[in-house]
Amino acid sequence: MRLSRYFLPVLKETPSEAQIVSHRLMLRAGMIKQASAGIYSWLPLGFKVLRRIEQIVHEEQQRVGHIPMLMPTLQSADLWKESGRYDAYGPEMLRIRDRQDRDMLYGPTNEELITDIFRSHVGSYKDLPLTLYHIQWKFRDEIRPRFGVMRGREFLMKDGYNFDLTKEDALHAYNRHLVSYLRTYERMGLQAIPMRADSGPIGGDDTHEFLVLAETGESEVFYDSQITDLKFGDREIDHDDHAACAAVLEEFTSRYARTDETHDEALFSQVPEDRRRTARGIEVGQIFYFGTKYSEPMGARVQGPDGKPVPVHMGSHGIGVSRLLGAIIEASHDERGIIWPEGVTPFHAGIVNLKQGDAEADAACEALYAALRGLGLDPLYDDTKGGAGAKFATMDLIGLPWRITVGPRGLKNGVVELTSRRTGESEEMPPEQAVERIAQVYAGIL
Amino acid sequence: MRLSRYFLPVLKETPSEAQIVSHRLMLRAGMIKQASAGIYSWLPLGFKVLRRIEQIVHEEQQRVGHIPMLMPTLQSADLWKESGRYDAYGPEMLRIRDRQDRDMLYGPTNEELITDIFRSHVGSYKDLPLTLYHIQWKFRDEIRPRFGVMRGREFLMKDGYNFDLTKEDALHAYNRHLVSYLRTYERMGLQAIPMRADSGPIGGDDTHEFLVLAETGESEVFYDSQITDLKFGDREIDHDDHAACAAVLEEFTSRYARTDETHDEALFSQVPEDRRRTARGIEVGQIFYFGTKYSEPMGARVQGPDGKPVPVHMGSHGIGVSRLLGAIIEASHDERGIIWPEGVTPFHAGIVNLKQGDAEADAACEALYAALRGLGLDPLYDDTKGGAGAKFATMDLIGLPWRITVGPRGLKNGVVELTSRRTGESEEMPPEQAVERIAQVYAGIL
Repeated sequence: MRLSRYFLPVLKETPSEAQIVSHRLMLRAGMIKQASAGIYSWLPLGFKVLRRIEQIVHEEQQRVGHIPMLMPTLQSADLWKESGRYDAYGPEMLRIRDRQDRDMLYGPTNEELITDIFRSHVGSYKDLPLTLYHIQWKFRDEIRPRFGVMRGREFLMKDGYNFDLTKEDALHAYNRHLVSYLRTYERMGLQAIPMRADSGPIGGDDTHEFLVLAETGESEVFYDSQITDLKFGDREIDHDDHAACAAVLEEFTSRYARTDETHDEALFSQVPEDRRRTARGIEVGQIFYFGTKYSEPMGARVQGPDGKPVPVHMGSHGIGVSRLLGAIIEASHDERGIIWPEGVTPFHAGIVNLKQGDAEADAACEALYAALRGLGLDPLYDDTKGGAGAKFATMDLIGLPWRITVGPRGLKNGVVELTSRRTGESEEMPPEQAVERIAQVYAGIL
Repeated sequence: MRLSRYFLPVLKETPSEAQIVSHRLMLRAGMIKQASAGIYSWLPLGFKVLRRIEQIVHEEQQRVGHIPMLMPTLQSADLWKESGRYDAYGPEMLRIRDRQDRDMLYGPTNEELITDIFRSHVGSYKDLPLTLYHIQWKFRDEIRPRFGVMRGREFLMKDGYNFDLTKEDALHAYNRHLVSYLRTYERMGLQAIPMRADSGPIGGDDTHEFLVLAETGESEVFYDSQITDLKFGDREIDHDDHAACAAVLEEFTSRYARTDETHDEALFSQVPEDRRRTARGIEVGQIFYFGTKYSEPMGARVQGPDGKPVPVHMGSHGIGVSRLLGAIIEASHDERGIIWPEGVTPFHAGIVNLKQGDAEADAACEALYAALRGLGLDPLYDDTKGGAGAKFATMDLIGLPWRITVGPRGLKNGVVELTSRRTGESEEMPPEQAVERIAQVYAGIL
């Protein structure tokens, strides 16, 4: 993309309404604009990151055999009356009456709707196991929406639902989700720690939240420091292998790690004192096993191997897609702006032309732009007439991991400058080498 | 995808509620399930086609320089009061009150919201031209939702908005959209004819609808038969070239083609009698130029070259993404089911194993499956134990353009059977050749 043809409305001033750094930076970098309280428009730069995150979630869900679909945003109240949650759910549920006076709602979650689809179409244990998921906008009518996309009212979530014949199979689905989530978050440059959690209105006993450590997190967390040494890395886990998935769960959840909701001081005190940590965390996902909580009242049964109908065992599993943008920025920024991990960056590299209009500089930038695009990369070329200081400030603010700076002086010596946003280190090299270096960085990521 | 691991709930019976063929076939092929009146869940097969269509729309929008973003589904009523449309819009607008008693609505379109974004961030003519678009769910509370996704209440639409300094520039944006739309629909295997239309609640004088001819179309259309000979093909049009875009508009709109809303019998009678046609059509898109209808009341002005503020000239441009699935099926099916054009097919080819469990047949299918996937194609392998008749019926129903049939008898002679869904013709050939033939078909498409 050429900046002169893009829509990147960066702000010089820090917006006064933003209390936390990710909200401030998303506004300043021209990523979002509030449409009404807790509801945002995603400007082009924000939308690009949202799509990258969504794409990673799709890829990792499908890698473990989960099947994508899409449920609507508005639901009929009838199904929620069947499950008993219509009255149980508080004022966070946005209730709507349509022109025919039917009670509707903007879905905050989809257990009822997916259970209805299941019971309408699946009748035999032979069709199990089955895990369906979607990525769709949800609404929770928060009384005090704040922190930008971190606690908005309209938000994008991946929610997936497993249907299994037995509790054992459903717990495998739970473990498989945990494995898949660890990989998903690491691809986004995040360490998200599974912590024993409270199930809230979803229900069930088995549930883990995934938390990213950050000073501005909404939850207080307590953990054994050994847990932050764990990496999932590029292990290849057979997602059908019960024992392999259970071993990953065991490895990542056997050490103490809880939020304030489930914290147990007596248990925590058994962790060696030098490894006890308290910090704050941002929730970016949660997995649940809740057995037959929905399948019983809603009659989601299959015929078992013995011919008798049995209610299926279910779980649901969420990733906060839009909130992840905030979480990533909270975990990765400095005083000059955002620092995108390569896995989710909106543009793979920035090209800054120090003297737009200079024939040689323009030609060198065009060649770099074409070379990067030819490799399947997505660069942002600042081809405007602004000064060097303003161009660098914008690139730093929007956080592209790599910047190539092109100017007449360097070109006389046959070099451009390659700068890492994370380390701030710059190195001069011929343009071809800069392209090659950037290609190498992304070779392992895309 | 292996069918044994997929969720494809095909129906044997024709659902009684479906009045038109696309609705019947989408239900029977397990593509959608009604969630409530006029609101659908997109089951995996339907979601795949929806995504393919969405992807084509994204690619073609970006090819002509339009910038993707995303606006929310819910909007504050305040902006609509500013434009004067809050009261003007009928009961099709779903009005919502949130827990703080604020008036909200589920957006049926986004002129107000995009104009607000524009006026907040753009101040100079130097930032023009600008065209922003998004693909987002909309809601229109139809009194009688029907015809499945063709007239649903919650529907997916691409809507784009151009901002220009002058009427002439805005008319170029209009022409550019027409060029882009012609290409977009042809990639989906559709002939969509631009017809002079009525502007309705969007406003403005210049507007064309794009109509696909089909017996079940909601509009009566009148046209000169020469128009159906026009093809856009793979022309390369410079989207910045005013004259080139205007010439395409001239070519595709100079012959008589109107819907019943704007039909002029006197003009129509000037078309030579043997070329006069009346038929029915399905609307799949519409483009509008409406000048300063929103920029004036909402104060969307830029500083012109002379330093004086002027309201921008705007237009909006829609493609009915979810309704396109219905339109494509109406235009392309037979008595056995759907016939997907290659550009939007959910799977590129089907593999039918006539004797699942036979070591040689299984191995041959696995090899075909791996070979197609290795080429970046997305095959559906029916690896279930069903009989040949049922397997063929399912493949015909879901409409994959190509089927490879593998059985022990053919394999003895070193051949499999390649069948075209459209022509019904089958040909025996070695498996490698079948893969090559399919690869060739898609080489020009993907």
